[in-house]
This record gives sequence, structure tokens and C-alpha cells, in this order.
Amino acid sequence: MSEYPSIVLEQAVNQMASLPGVGRRTALRLVLHLLRQKDEEVEAFAGAFLRLKKEVVYCRECHNISDTDLCPICSSMRRDHTTICVVENVQDVMSIENTGQYTGVYHVLGGIISPMEGIGPKDIEIDSLIERVSKGDVQEIILALPTTMEGDTTNFYIYRRLQNAGIEIKITQIARGVAVGNQIEYTDEITLGRSIVNRIDFKG
Amino acid sequence: MSEYPSIVLEQAVNQMASLPGVGRRTALRLVLHLLRQKDEEVEAFAGAFLRLKKEVVYCRECHNISDTDLCPICSSMRRDHTTICVVENVQDVMSIENTGQYTGVYHVLGGIISPMEGIGPKDIEIDSLIERVSKGDVQEIILALPTTMEGDTTNFYIYRRLQNAGIEIKITQIARGVAVGNQIEYTDEITLGRSIVNRIDFKG
Repeated sequence: MSEYPSIVLEQAVNQMASLPGVGRRTALRLVLHLLRQKDEEVEAFAGAFLRLKKEVVYCRECHNISDTDLCPICSSMRRDHTTICVVENVQDVMSIENTGQYTGVYHVLGGIISPMEGIGPKDIEIDSLIERVSKGDVQEIILALPTTMEGDTTNFYIYRRLQNAGIEIKITQIARGVAVGNQIEYTDEITLGRSIVNRIDFKG
Repeated sequence: MSEYPSIVLEQAVNQMASLPGVGRRTALRLVLHLLRQKDEEVEAFAGAFLRLKKEVVYCRECHNISDTDLCPICSSMRRDHTTICVVENVQDVMSIENTGQYTGVYHVLGGIISPMEGIGPKDIEIDSLIERVSKGDVQEIILALPTTMEGDTTNFYIYRRLQNAGIEIKITQIARGVAVGNQIEYTDEITLGRSIVNRIDFKG
């Protein structure tokens, strides 16, 4: 006999446990929570994911998730369309937007180059970035990828592709250093070292 | 503008974050994971919860979750139907079943008496337990509720209801003591105290 008293319960637990980071015990707890909700609420729960999968599109310019062919950021006249910030994923766009400090547009790669995971340049939105920049209006691209070997590889690949295409624009990367509010003595050596090498002029 | 680049994405995140213990950041991560899956997989995910809600029933005897009117345990001829183990919820049945040590049947209360949360005796399956015991075949009920004030209250309430109904059967509760493998010095005082008061004969 199965560990579960019901096959439909077991199937629901299997589905919940298929989510990353959700173990079988947690999955059971979540499923039993759903089971205690009203019919309409479970329908709304399930329906939200079906609708998402059916209706969501990716912006044809920046490849961010969107409800429309061109996302609100790419279609905004208030944004600076000459500056493109290159990020790994949708969450990164949301994080940068939350700072309220960036007025340019984005380019969502949808991953970074990772030979270990079998992700090559063709698997992410690099061709479309080069094409976008080739149109000539872009003046700066800001690389905001993770500081990992994969991130560095992707940064360098993009840099070479732009060079090879004969595109001469400003390429910058976001500043890395001691986080605001963090104490010097508790900052890791690599970050602290970079913060000294990449020091900037003091604006008194 | 909303924090989310898409309304359907936001709605899916809202639904995921409605699960207990799932924060908005985790919900976003889970939803974006679903979005990367194939259509059929998202349909299977959503469908499992709809099916669960539609098809699952509660056993008419023990009130455990079941696919059938009478659950596999209650309909089994191999189980001892004269012993009923009273538990709070479905998970407790699964935990006890996993030990392989219990051959009787269950009664799932679906909660415990908690004045703080507004749960009274009528909100849980106590009447049906008394009725079940009144039929006369039951010889023992084992109380396996949590050792909390609510658990103790519920134990005592069941005891009094059985007394008032003039039902004289053996009432036991599961043993509490130092967990197997645990060291004495790290056991909390209340558990250790109980383990001494409720000591049992040594079987050499």
C-alpha cells in the first residue's frame, strides 16, 4: 500500500514536491492546506498558473516577461532607450527597478553561459542583444551579471561579440564593493580588495 | 506601475504566496520555475489540485482522507477494529502507519479543541467518535494528540464524554519520554521528568 491514504492526494503531493526546494513533507502540508480551502479558492489557485502559462509573453525587445508584445518599460517614452542594462533574469530587472535609480531599458538574457550546465551563447538572448545594439541608437550597455565564472565568461563573450561586429559603444559594469552599511572588518577579502582597486574620487 | 512586469505573473505570485510559509520572493521563484516548464507539465501541476479538491472524500468511519467512501484501513480485514487510535490530522495517521507498529484503526479529529482559535468540540469529529464507540465493538481507544494545553483539553473532553455516555472501555495514551537514541543530558526537563514518573518495568 502507498504511504498516502489516497491516490489523488499522492498525485497532488508529487506535483507540489516537483517545485524546487519543496520537500515531500512540506508538499503534503501545502496540499492539505489547499484541501481545506473553498472550491473557488482552489480553482483560483490552479487557474492562475494555467493563465500565466497561456497568456504571458516575452517582450520582443528586452525579452522580459510581459502581458504585451512590447513591455511597459520598452514602450515607455520616459525611459532612456540609449542605455541597455544586461541582466540574467526577470528577478534582476525587478530588483533594479525597485531601487528607482535606473531610467534606461533592459535586456534579459534568460540565463548565463555555463558549460557545466550545457548552456551556450545560442541558448540565451545574446544574438538579439547584438542585433539590438547594431541598430545604432544605443550608446551604453551596462553589464549587471553575477560575479561568478559564468557571469565573467558571459560578460567577456558579449564584449568580444560587440568588438567583432565593429560596434564601438561604452560598455560598463555595475560597481562591486563594500555594501552600504556593512562594516569593513566583516567584508570578505575579495570584495574588500576590489573596493580598493576600483576606488572612486571622493566628492566632498 | 506594479512591481511585477506582468499582471498574470503578479496574480500567479499572489496565489503561490497564499500558501502557508511561502514568502513573495520564494513564490516568484517557484512561479518562474513553472513558467519554464512545458505546457503539459503546468497543466498536470494545476490539474492535480483541481482533481484533489473534486475527487477526494473523507472516510465515513475514521474521517481520514480517502479515494473511497470507506478508506483502505477501515475496510481492511487485517486490521484490529476493536482498537481506535485518535489523532489530530492526516499527517499523524501517515506517521503512525510508517512505524509499522500499529494494527488497529484510526479516528481523525481534523483538529483539536482550541478556544484561542475558536475551535470547539462541535468543530471536530468528536460526536462521530462517541457514536462509533457506542456501537459496542470497540475495546480500547488510544489518545495520540499533541502534548499541548489544547491536546490535554481535547483528551479530557473525550474522556468525560465517554464517561457521561456510560461507555466503559480502556482509554490509553501514547508513551512520552526520552526519544530513542537521545542523550539524557540534552532532553528537556519536562520530558525527562515524565519519563521518570511514568517509568515502566525493565524486561531483562
